[in-house]
Amino acid sequence: MPARYLEDLSVGETWEGGPIPIAEDAVIAFAKAYDPQPMHVDPVAAAQGRFGGIIASGWHVAALVMRDYVESSPFGDTPLLGLQLDGLRWEEAVRPGDVLQARREILEVTRSRSKPDRGLVRIGVTVTNQHGRTVMRYTNLVQIFARPDAEAGC
Amino acid sequence: MPARYLEDLSVGETWEGGPIPIAEDAVIAFAKAYDPQPMHVDPVAAAQGRFGGIIASGWHVAALVMRDYVESSPFGDTPLLGLQLDGLRWEEAVRPGDVLQARREILEVTRSRSKPDRGLVRIGVTVTNQHGRTVMRYTNLVQIFARPDAEAGC
Repeated sequence: MPARYLEDLSVGETWEGGPIPIAEDAVIAFAKAYDPQPMHVDPVAAAQGRFGGIIASGWHVAALVMRDYVESSPFGDTPLLGLQLDGLRWEEAVRPGDVLQARREILEVTRSRSKPDRGLVRIGVTVTNQHGRTVMRYTNLVQIFARPDAEAGC
Repeated sequence: MPARYLEDLSVGETWEGGPIPIAEDAVIAFAKAYDPQPMHVDPVAAAQGRFGGIIASGWHVAALVMRDYVESSPFGDTPLLGLQLDGLRWEEAVRPGDVLQARREILEVTRSRSKPDRGLVRIGVTVTNQHGRTVMRYTNLVQIFARPDAEAGC
């Protein structure tokens, strides 16, 4: 896909990523490194806990959604520099065996007034599981460059 | 540290984590798995880019801060179930060689009305680098259980 820039993006544009399978060994490996709580790393303890088994760290889910974002980006090779994130909700537990799907929508496109060679894109992200239930959502404010050879507004 | 529960927590309580050193090999390994953009994984391309070198994925920084949170938690073994995250700002680039420090403050403690055996704690998190500059901040809403043998309000 060719690189796309600020002026190529429209409010209301949506795209979906690929399936994001959740594997138990990956859940445990991520959590041992970054979120070593029994509900994420210890199948025996987790089975006796409130979720009845291992659940993925919310940060692991977020990281997998980021990878999916890079892989499914409709911006081509244009770098995606996340500046802000708001309204992140981990709404349901994510378990080994789940297959997630991320849907994104462009909510806002704004050219910088002080640096017109770049701008901001606000993207709404909704992640569902194989039952169609939302497991995570957030909005993300991403900096993206304007087309190098253009001076028109957007 | 003994487990602490909802009624043991006070608004205004603060705590700091340990030093969080940022290693280049870890930055690249995380980003190859979760955020494979040249600015995070390719030292040569990154050196020619706007940051003049590799920078850490914001999700990697967030994951390292989560690990520090578990390790420095003043809640003992009480599980920390993150429900929401708001106002996350990646304010400055994080580079290999940086050493980060997280400071946390309890902003709000609320017992659930519908499920009085648990409640919510809102925690403000500020992450600075070795120059004292803030690199990331957010507030986190965490579910925590009330003391099992208590019925008093908080």
